[in-house]
Amino acid sequence: MRGFCVIAMAGLLNTSRGAAQDQRPLNLMPAPSGLQMGTDHLTVDSSFSVASTGHTEPRLDRAVERFLHQLARQTAIPRFAKPVSASKATLIIRTDHASKEIQELGEDESYDLEVSADGAKLTAATPLGTMHGLQTFLQLVEISPEGFAAPGVTIHDKPRFPWRGLMIDTARHFIPLDILRRNIDGTEAVKMNVFHWHLSENQGFRVESKKFPKLHEMGSDGLYFTQQEIRDLTAYARDRGIRVVPEFDVPGHSTAWFVGYPELASAPGPYEVERKWGIFNPAFDPTNEKTYKFLEQFIGEMAKLFPDHFFHVGGDEVNGKQWDANPKIQEYMRAHGIKNNQALQAYFNKRLQTIVTKHGKSMIGWDEILDPSLPKDITIQSWRGQASLADAAKQGYRGLLSNGYYLDLGWPAARHYAVDPMSGAAANLSPEEKGRILGGEACMWAEYVNPENIDSRVWPRNAAVAERLWSPPEVTDAASMYSRLEVLSARLEWLGLTHKTYYTRMLQRIAGPSSMEEFDALRTLAEAVEPVKDYTRGRTAPAIPTSATPMNRLVDAVPPESANARRFAQLVDSFIAASCRSPELDARLRVQLIRWRDNDAMLEPLAQRSFLLKEAAPVSQDLSVLGAAGLAALDFIAKGQRSPDDWKTQQLAAIQQILKPKAQLLLMPAPAVQKLIEAASGAGACSPSNP
Amino acid sequence: MRGFCVIAMAGLLNTSRGAAQDQRPLNLMPAPSGLQMGTDHLTVDSSFSVASTGHTEPRLDRAVERFLHQLARQTAIPRFAKPVSASKATLIIRTDHASKEIQELGEDESYDLEVSADGAKLTAATPLGTMHGLQTFLQLVEISPEGFAAPGVTIHDKPRFPWRGLMIDTARHFIPLDILRRNIDGTEAVKMNVFHWHLSENQGFRVESKKFPKLHEMGSDGLYFTQQEIRDLTAYARDRGIRVVPEFDVPGHSTAWFVGYPELASAPGPYEVERKWGIFNPAFDPTNEKTYKFLEQFIGEMAKLFPDHFFHVGGDEVNGKQWDANPKIQEYMRAHGIKNNQALQAYFNKRLQTIVTKHGKSMIGWDEILDPSLPKDITIQSWRGQASLADAAKQGYRGLLSNGYYLDLGWPAARHYAVDPMSGAAANLSPEEKGRILGGEACMWAEYVNPENIDSRVWPRNAAVAERLWSPPEVTDAASMYSRLEVLSARLEWLGLTHKTYYTRMLQRIAGPSSMEEFDALRTLAEAVEPVKDYTRGRTAPAIPTSATPMNRLVDAVPPESANARRFAQLVDSFIAASCRSPELDARLRVQLIRWRDNDAMLEPLAQRSFLLKEAAPVSQDLSVLGAAGLAALDFIAKGQRSPDDWKTQQLAAIQQILKPKAQLLLMPAPAVQKLIEAASGAGACSPSNP
Repeated sequence: MRGFCVIAMAGLLNTSRGAAQDQRPLNLMPAPSGLQMGTDHLTVDSSFSVASTGHTEPRLDRAVERFLHQLARQTAIPRFAKPVSASKATLIIRTDHASKEIQELGEDESYDLEVSADGAKLTAATPLGTMHGLQTFLQLVEISPEGFAAPGVTIHDKPRFPWRGLMIDTARHFIPLDILRRNIDGTEAVKMNVFHWHLSENQGFRVESKKFPKLHEMGSDGLYFTQQEIRDLTAYARDRGIRVVPEFDVPGHSTAWFVGYPELASAPGPYEVERKWGIFNPAFDPTNEKTYKFLEQFIGEMAKLFPDHFFHVGGDEVNGKQWDANPKIQEYMRAHGIKNNQALQAYFNKRLQTIVTKHGKSMIGWDEILDPSLPKDITIQSWRGQASLADAAKQGYRGLLSNGYYLDLGWPAARHYAVDPMSGAAANLSPEEKGRILGGEACMWAEYVNPENIDSRVWPRNAAVAERLWSPPEVTDAASMYSRLEVLSARLEWLGLTHKTYYTRMLQRIAGPSSMEEFDALRTLAEAVEPVKDYTRGRTAPAIPTSATPMNRLVDAVPPESANARRFAQLVDSFIAASCRSPELDARLRVQLIRWRDNDAMLEPLAQRSFLLKEAAPVSQDLSVLGAAGLAALDFIAKGQRSPDDWKTQQLAAIQQILKPKAQLLLMPAPAVQKLIEAASGAGACSPSNP
Repeated sequence: MRGFCVIAMAGLLNTSRGAAQDQRPLNLMPAPSGLQMGTDHLTVDSSFSVASTGHTEPRLDRAVERFLHQLARQTAIPRFAKPVSASKATLIIRTDHASKEIQELGEDESYDLEVSADGAKLTAATPLGTMHGLQTFLQLVEISPEGFAAPGVTIHDKPRFPWRGLMIDTARHFIPLDILRRNIDGTEAVKMNVFHWHLSENQGFRVESKKFPKLHEMGSDGLYFTQQEIRDLTAYARDRGIRVVPEFDVPGHSTAWFVGYPELASAPGPYEVERKWGIFNPAFDPTNEKTYKFLEQFIGEMAKLFPDHFFHVGGDEVNGKQWDANPKIQEYMRAHGIKNNQALQAYFNKRLQTIVTKHGKSMIGWDEILDPSLPKDITIQSWRGQASLADAAKQGYRGLLSNGYYLDLGWPAARHYAVDPMSGAAANLSPEEKGRILGGEACMWAEYVNPENIDSRVWPRNAAVAERLWSPPEVTDAASMYSRLEVLSARLEWLGLTHKTYYTRMLQRIAGPSSMEEFDALRTLAEAVEPVKDYTRGRTAPAIPTSATPMNRLVDAVPPESANARRFAQLVDSFIAASCRSPELDARLRVQLIRWRDNDAMLEPLAQRSFLLKEAAPVSQDLSVLGAAGLAALDFIAKGQRSPDDWKTQQLAAIQQILKPKAQLLLMPAPAVQKLIEAASGAGACSPSNP
């Protein structure tokens, strides 16, 4: 089955539906595991109706209501019909049986969806599959010359991995509930099934504890989630087929705990909520029985609050400095034959695992918790990579991949997309070992995101990770991914996500009162740059960044990936592939290059007036240089002249300067312009001596 | 005092702050009644703090919290300082005394605001003035080369009229609470003080009634406000210095009441919620004592729910057909000497006024309730015009103006702005009579607005009405108004209003999956058109519009006023004023005209794929014709040639065709292009015979 399906799908997603249809590809994301096109289409208008048959439950009713609401937003059809009888409905749902009361890892999430001119049928074993199928149907509905319609299609779909998650760090910057809710809506839309909620950090403890109220009272600046809010969000996620896995990071990343309870730390207090970013010394004292008494009660309380079977204990990045400096801890280690800090953390984790297990939960943590002395029940979330994941699997531990899926590093979607949990060291595992790799999670760490720009750091790139974890491994074409991602991205805004719309507001703040021409110039600059990547942002910050640093700079506003620069690079590649002989591509390149060349002059008055734009003035000047250089290169090419060597040297030197980040921004079209300069020098396909 | 202030202000708002400062005008809206510039400025950074002195109350604390939250959104400064002591705060507020527990017409809303490098002082008699002053301060804070700052300034400010309202019709299309809340936030920002809540119509009864539950159960399609929601919204508005005046429209506009209570109507039922727009026959039976018994109880319930002193009974557009056709009513009229339907309605209103007064309220209604037989306590809201308002004032009735402020008619802001409640017939009233004119209200009738586009129909144009009602009558410069309106419009989105951002989503729905070039072409078209004006929309609809009609057309998406067309028209006027001899203006006009000329070719593939765009294809072609015609005109002018007569005739004929609405859209640049064509023919200043 899969063979046929994958082949069929690859064709249908990337090229066309066949001659009988118009030539638009399907815009499904994640791509389903099996798909066959029909020849007709189903009209979606106000007569559209839905009926649920088989197993029903209030959650399914709410899912259908949400589906119709979403369909109404997509189409602006205010009211849909009520079916006269179930068999007369346009979309007939049949769900076989209930899913587990508390959603579990590995439940059946498959569904089948058949659409034809006569109607649609959605069948699934459980409500989880039904909900995925409804999302697929929403993605099928598109505008046509006659109205809204879904193409005739037969889809058999199921996920490749059972654990497909998004982690959001709500501790470094507090992210309020309404924003989490809309991100969970987005997560549902791309068929992820885990929301990993990072709840404690050096910079904040974000959960109300009734047992230890000083945790949130003293460790959160008043920014925390009440237990009722947590119950509500968990129910909200469950309604969308999404498990909520809480993370309380111990023994490190824990300064905020110690503001209220300094006696648990490995060095005397007092402690204050940390304002800076980085790795800090404070850590629980693993040799103090009070620590375990506290965690026993605390985890008991949280285990009741969070119904999921998994409980995340963090465990990452303990630098051990407080342990090294504490004579009592050193004495304890000697007395108990604990050789080093790693062994000390393993000892802590064993004690912790007992507590977590006692409260009915399964422990999950970052790579550092892996130690052969721990029972096989624990699960490793790897921020270090496939090798570490494979290593765990060989030792009998289950694991999931997050290395390669760190959304905060600002990578292009294609780079995340290319990361497969089963590649690298994992590719050589035995089938049994492979079975221990549960999937992966995209991670949104929050040093440089806040309520205003977080959507744009998660979306749309998270959808590329979601597809990697849902779709068959053969689905790897980046061009198809980008094409579908752009359509999805627009759709996601109907859910209330603001990853596209936030941007204008932030640019308006940077600009202040400005003319239309000035604002357009700012937009042109903003669309050509990206924030610096990986951990460069923190390392090169103009002043030590803290949680009180305003995030109002251009680097905070621009999206992580410049669609404009990507398109320009594609144009340049096509132009060179055509031996630089396409007048049409030449013209399109010139339009863009002229705009860049002339942009700085229009932006300059604004940069004089706005302190937020002043720092980006050199980037704007660089963009003009790039535009002029690219145009000069095109002129040489058009005249069939080889560019003079000293011109080329000079231009390439300029590019080298331009490639250096300024104002923590990267000018993304630089490499493509460099290609044009090289082409103008007569290298390769564009040499004037070529026919 | 006023003399100096107004003169000073006009200069400062429209031109510059003087040589010592940079040359940016202040962007205050509404313009304050008195203002004097200082020479320094106050830096706003994270050390900024606020202290309240004098009278304090929880509402003021919340207002300060909201102010700081808003300042944080404008600047992205995450935390502001707490003042060590009140006298050390950056902004020191002094409120003299409390305002009335239930906000009343005519309370003191004045405030004084002094800003200098050392700090700011805001003083006001009541919290109402304090809140207005905080809004002014927010508008003063702008970006500067050094950071965020407020200019040194002394402002004495108070409203011209005591009743400055926005009416929203939540009955024809249901408008949910979150949207009302953000519109109330916008209302606060422009210092309006009344939210007039239109709650019942033929198309829906939107309030929960415990006494008569069939009103909302059968008359609302399930879309109504619960009493708790109403209490919450009223408290929300009170927190912002805004009164909530409910309107229950009787005896006409009342079909939805009769779905549950047909016995109150003047013709036998059954009744259904009306789906179409227009004036309909159903009306309460004024000759039936049951009507008054019902209204007595109903108004009693609503009088408790809505604390405001005023109670709006509608009273407009009773066509009398049900009365004419009912023999019992005719008999009653004969028996009681009621001469005609107008007298019958006056009889009804007298009975109604007794009920309203009995429940402690003052009755307000539309022009039609005016009858000399009614006591002077009633207030007239005039949808008919200043003459009707002046007439009422002469007879001793109070009134407010809405004629000229109907936002649903799609007028440009400048046209609303030019309407003064005291002009026309009102200008000749005695001072005492003038005192009866309380102010005015902008009205947002909801036939063609829904939750998606309502913000864009209210904002930013409502701010022009707000300024008319607040600022001195001498503040009338439209260019200054537009310049400040654009700045305000961007600011308003920080409040959560979506009048700017909604637009991209609606265009994306119309476009469906599309290339960047196609989407840009759609945007170019959309920015050149406006919806048809006045009541043309309903009269020329392609099919009878109802509440079930999807509002997804281009006419629903485009804003009521094309800023782009306005700017183009200004350019053309400047060009012609310069005797068509400015190469710079010529170049700028060409950029725009080339874009329009070439746009249709880029849009055409999209129009083939989208049924929502298909209807606009002729408009897109017209835009190309306009672009080409304008360019040809510029060419004649540039060559110093008089255009041939047949060319001119042909072009003007084309313009005549283009001026006709298509797809219910007006192509706004047409008149300006016509001016260019006429200029090219050698008429006026641009004649080639001129030096």
